[in-house]
Amino acid sequence: MPPKSKVVADALESPCGITRTLGVLSDPWAFLILRSSFLGQRTFAEFRYSLGIATDVLTARLNTLVEQGIFKKVPYQHAGQRTRHAYDRTMAGQELLTVLISMQQWGDAHLVSNKPREVLPVRRDSDSKVRVSLVDEEGSFVNSADTEFVREHSG
Amino acid sequence: MPPKSKVVADALESPCGITRTLGVLSDPWAFLILRSSFLGQRTFAEFRYSLGIATDVLTARLNTLVEQGIFKKVPYQHAGQRTRHAYDRTMAGQELLTVLISMQQWGDAHLVSNKPREVLPVRRDSDSKVRVSLVDEEGSFVNSADTEFVREHSG
Repeated sequence: MPPKSKVVADALESPCGITRTLGVLSDPWAFLILRSSFLGQRTFAEFRYSLGIATDVLTARLNTLVEQGIFKKVPYQHAGQRTRHAYDRTMAGQELLTVLISMQQWGDAHLVSNKPREVLPVRRDSDSKVRVSLVDEEGSFVNSADTEFVREHSG
Repeated sequence: MPPKSKVVADALESPCGITRTLGVLSDPWAFLILRSSFLGQRTFAEFRYSLGIATDVLTARLNTLVEQGIFKKVPYQHAGQRTRHAYDRTMAGQELLTVLISMQQWGDAHLVSNKPREVLPVRRDSDSKVRVSLVDEEGSFVNSADTEFVREHSG
């Protein structure tokens, strides 16, 4: 496995969780590979075919996603062929769904498309549509306009 | 103002809201400029100084963020100097806070750092900490493990 790139390594040293996440999801391909995974794709060939991504870029992104604990490699074998690996999401990878849904929700609200939406997030057990919301410590919903970043008190 | 890049233009044609959002937030710099904005920075010089970003990259990203309605340019002038522009978030830009908080929350949970967190999201009116959650149509919280993307029915 190749060494982590300097950019990824630097980002992962950051005190900022946003920057660390960007060290792993370092370009649109990483997000799109993850989206493909949530749509049921698991193999190198499936990712490559659906995304039209160059093999070296796909290899590099998959390696980073495995190194950072987002995908785990699962061996599989078709009759008479050599063993290959599929890429399944870990629990940490599954939790990135919240990031993807927040991006989908924002894109649907603010970047108009004349094409119909193709996929939507739902509860597995009820088909109830799922959205992302900001929530305070009491469990009340909060608007983004009423939310701000503040410096954390040291000590 | 330069024409939109082909990559951005293509992404914005996508039926997928995630892809359209990635057309605007097309690399880590775009996310980091936005983060700086939420931390109170407004001017080209402030972004450039805090991020150490090349001026041509910063110019390109700010132009895209203005074109796509995330920042609006606001003129300001210091005594005896020429008019300059600050970049303030629009309402659409403010709503990207949900995307950033979801990335911060995931990074804090899954990419361990030995450095203390520096900023955290809170309600403006109460300092109650704010987190991102998945919520169904009845307003119940949902785990990401219990959520999936499904193909939307056509028609």
